[in-house]
Amino acid sequence: MTMAIGGISLHAVDVASGRPAQGMAVELVALDAGGERLLARGTLGAGGALDHPVARGELPITAGAHEARFAVGAWLRAGDPQLGRVFMEVAVLRFEVLDPAEHVHLPLKFTRWGLALFRGS
Amino acid sequence: MTMAIGGISLHAVDVASGRPAQGMAVELVALDAGGERLLARGTLGAGGALDHPVARGELPITAGAHEARFAVGAWLRAGDPQLGRVFMEVAVLRFEVLDPAEHVHLPLKFTRWGLALFRGS
Amino acid sequence: MTMAIGGISLHAVDVASGRPAQGMAVELVALDAGGERLLARGTLGAGGALDHPVARGELPITAGAHEARFAVGAWLRAGDPQLGRVFMEVAVLRFEVLDPAEHVHLPLKFTRWGLALFRGS
Amino acid sequence: MTMAIGGISLHAVDVASGRPAQGMAVELVALDAGGERLLARGTLGAGGALDHPVARGELPITAGAHEARFAVGAWLRAGDPQLGRVFMEVAVLRFEVLDPAEHVHLPLKFTRWGLALFRGS
Repeated sequence: MTMAIGGISLHAVDVASGRPAQGMAVELVALDAGGERLLARGTLGAGGALDHPVARGELPITAGAHEARFAVGAWLRAGDPQLGRVFMEVAVLRFEVLDPAEHVHLPLKFTRWGLALFRGS
Repeated sequence: MTMAIGGISLHAVDVASGRPAQGMAVELVALDAGGERLLARGTLGAGGALDHPVARGELPITAGAHEARFAVGAWLRAGDPQLGRVFMEVAVLRFEVLDPAEHVHLPLKFTRWGLALFRGS
Repeated sequence: MTMAIGGISLHAVDVASGRPAQGMAVELVALDAGGERLLARGTLGAGGALDHPVARGELPITAGAHEARFAVGAWLRAGDPQLGRVFMEVAVLRFEVLDPAEHVHLPLKFTRWGLALFRGS
Repeated sequence: MTMAIGGISLHAVDVASGRPAQGMAVELVALDAGGERLLARGTLGAGGALDHPVARGELPITAGAHEARFAVGAWLRAGDPQLGRVFMEVAVLRFEVLDPAEHVHLPLKFTRWGLALFRGS
């Protein structure tokens, strides 16, 4: 375990199949007064984590509201092309950065039918 | 159990204290191409459910993306005025209505640090 | 919603497929000093709930430790005969009856890879 | 992240307070035909993990049923001596070791009123 200084890390596991969500598209935005500002966009790696400077605390984060968005539906369809739209196309977590010096870890557990996400550190 | 015909019902329980979230402000919106459209706004009742025509299937629902938003932070501060901003000020669930004739039940379990929500029926 | 007087109700939903666990074998035992005492055994009905006198508050419950056990593995194999043993063959919830006059609702959400269960009422 | 070879690791976070469950008593047993066999007993460290040879894959594990038990009630009372017995005195996870060469990570999220646990790796 590394002692991250600040930063926001995203991680996702499909708890229906037990697999990390390798290849899932995700984005992280800050919700500022004037609209949203993109902090990170990418696809999750083999372990289900996003490898990005924002996860390593190398980008400045500000206090305030943010959203992490995980493209669950597209990822499920990539594995099952017969699948149509699903109940949870995009899993959204809206959260606050309270102290920009503190790392926020967001470990999403999802299925087609819902999610569990409790902040890690 | 009633056989609801269509409709979207919201329910929230604070699983830190074990209490239904009576008095919590919630809103439900449809995410249309041109922006969002308010379907319901209100506060949860004594059992933690929103009593509203949309929950009883009395309002037309259309297929597509929706968001349910639960004002967790304000509700927690109402019970503890010393509490500052919390990690999850607003719990958001973005979901799809796949078949407007089918009831969607959204039973949120939350704490200050996260949530679990799997679709019910 | 009925006002149950006492009693313990079991409910299970497969949150990988979104289906109530109709036909799943379950049992409920009291963990007494001298061993365990069977309170209920049966299979879940169409809505995923156990229809049994103990769920309706018609059997005496005593304060103390209990376990609810849900035969997840056998139920999954009934739907997929190719499936071998799974990570969670039996989902167990050990819990206390604190006040026998109060109803305890146990709504299990499960997949092959884990579970979420927060007490309802 | 280390590549553990086999082994079973336990981790617990109180998602009501957002804190790792430092100091919580835990035990891990194998459920053999003739009864249970203790594999590990200890208290969780500062990060909420059990530091034990079984977590590092240094002890032989056999395929079959196991239980991890987390003494939630006693830990909560250590932080709040006024607290009486709670709904979930001992959080139990019964699970199978399917392949002894594969690491099993058990990250418990709990409150006084329930738990979520999906297998990690």
